Amino acid sequence: VGEFDLIAKLQARLGKPGPGVLLGSGDDAAVTKPRGVAATSVDAIVDGVHFRRSSVPLEAIGRKALAAALSDLAAMGAQPGEAYIALGVPQDLGEEGCLELLAGAEAVAAETATTLAGGDVTRSAILFAAVTVVGYAESEADLVTRSGARDGDVVAVTGRLGGAAAGLRMIERETAGETDDLPGLPEGVAGALRARQLEPRPRLLEGRALARAGASAMIDVSDGLGSDARHVAEQSGVRLEIDLAALPIQDGVMELARVAGEDSFELATAVGEDYELLVCLPAEALERARSAVRETDCELTAIGRCVAGDGVRLSDQTGRELQARGHDQLT
Amino acid sequence: VGEFDLIAKLQARLGKPGPGVLLGSGDDAAVTKPRGVAATSVDAIVDGVHFRRSSVPLEAIGRKALAAALSDLAAMGAQPGEAYIALGVPQDLGEEGCLELLAGAEAVAAETATTLAGGDVTRSAILFAAVTVVGYAESEADLVTRSGARDGDVVAVTGRLGGAAAGLRMIERETAGETDDLPGLPEGVAGALRARQLEPRPRLLEGRALARAGASAMIDVSDGLGSDARHVAEQSGVRLEIDLAALPIQDGVMELARVAGEDSFELATAVGEDYELLVCLPAEALERARSAVRETDCELTAIGRCVAGDGVRLSDQTGRELQARGHDQLT
Repeated sequence: VGEFDLIAKLQARLGKPGPGVLLGSGDDAAVTKPRGVAATSVDAIVDGVHFRRSSVPLEAIGRKALAAALSDLAAMGAQPGEAYIALGVPQDLGEEGCLELLAGAEAVAAETATTLAGGDVTRSAILFAAVTVVGYAESEADLVTRSGARDGDVVAVTGRLGGAAAGLRMIERETAGETDDLPGLPEGVAGALRARQLEPRPRLLEGRALARAGASAMIDVSDGLGSDARHVAEQSGVRLEIDLAALPIQDGVMELARVAGEDSFELATAVGEDYELLVCLPAEALERARSAVRETDCELTAIGRCVAGDGVRLSDQTGRELQARGHDQLT
Repeated sequence: VGEFDLIAKLQARLGKPGPGVLLGSGDDAAVTKPRGVAATSVDAIVDGVHFRRSSVPLEAIGRKALAAALSDLAAMGAQPGEAYIALGVPQDLGEEGCLELLAGAEAVAAETATTLAGGDVTRSAILFAAVTVVGYAESEADLVTRSGARDGDVVAVTGRLGGAAAGLRMIERETAGETDDLPGLPEGVAGALRARQLEPRPRLLEGRALARAGASAMIDVSDGLGSDARHVAEQSGVRLEIDLAALPIQDGVMELARVAGEDSFELATAVGEDYELLVCLPAEALERARSAVRETDCELTAIGRCVAGDGVRLSDQTGRELQARGHDQLT
């Protein structure tokens, strides 16, 4: 399979460009007519670091690559526009493998009204996908950064935590055939954990709803609640105090944690990949935000407060306290 | 070195954002206020495919990563705006290595008035850099695609060809200590060949000048003149007839080709990385285009014609004929 043939085949598979895309994939560059302000983010996933080719389907890798990138746009409250994918392809992946991986990205693009507008395919000793996404908003004031949290703000989180970490542990045991010690979870619960890892959903609607509802700061929970909260604390100049007892932990995470000999709060706060949104907002905006998020079929849970100071405290009333950490991709 | 520390250090090193960049690196996404239309392109370079860490300085890898991406904007006639770099970093590269690589990208950014507005750094078994660049033009009509060449158009090329390929062969011999058979080139000529490989310059000014002068189709010579010409032929629905005798081959390429046991025309047409522009334009626009390019301190050389038909013919009056091919990154 040659680069040019494969690119032509990939192009043929791409959906119809969205509005604002004047020239899609196939020339030296894609041409768009941007509206308002643009939010642009890059996210790379690499075999052996963010996934293992041996334990997940290629389609799930494509899904994750685009979903993880779009999650950053969700955290800005931006509406997704275009995505560009640079793919590093090992010799043994083959054309079928590339198309399967792309099918995953295409599925996420279709679900989120994102246009796959271009990219690059190159040989590489290991599989990687670097995705650039561009989203839009009417004006800068409609976007939410990490730096606007204020003393007195409520800290809240969308959806449920820990599912991606628990799902990964389950999938890895299943792939290795070590299923004997897996907890007997109802299939709905087990399936939801698997889906968290294999079909991550960027909280795009929720992010825009939270922006409109008056969010002061927002970040996606990609590296782990602890370290993501630390970024907000640092960039906003406040301290985030988070009540572990209030965390919305996904069903089945406790059972998986027990089997894996891990702490379920660690899975929920220090591993990441749940792609939920951590949001700060003035106390008076909480109810409005909660109903706005409910309209997208998701829940918003208050989990703490911003106070004067710096850093992050993750604790509960029993005296339990966790380090605010996350998955640091270089250590 | 941790991801977050390194990212903070990289951010601290970035230059002042250009106009239109409302929020630079450091949040979930960069925020820009685009003007007119945007041209977006992605280019990934990978160790062992596009460069060898063992034979080129890290700074040159950073240079090449950004220059190669910007070259696609040059071929559209777009003015560069922002660049986003996803870096895959092997364990042994270290913080110093990352900063050295970034210094190369920064140098190209400064030379081309491009803002490094964001990116991603992740662990990876091999070094790669995937760069997304965004450029701008007033309107779609100001950009040049690959598809506008017409029967009767002149085919021309900026600058000189074959230098990047010859430079690579020279550097590899020098790195291996096999310098005995290198031709005794004047140091200016040898230095220019090395620079072609280590400090590629995207033809941004030339691209915009050619767009204004009425170019009908344009592409950058990244994979090799032969295959790049083929893309224009396919997308424009014409045949490109190129006269080998007219090719502006860089000084020293013939001597290096002889030593390497290769054909200098092959080095000039089938290897690529010269990042010159291949342009088609109506015959009456040629003189105007030539003087516009001369004003940027570069030369424009007519090398052929567009005729009815398809494909590319690379030949000369002696009956010599080459296959129109290039460096296909997947074969």
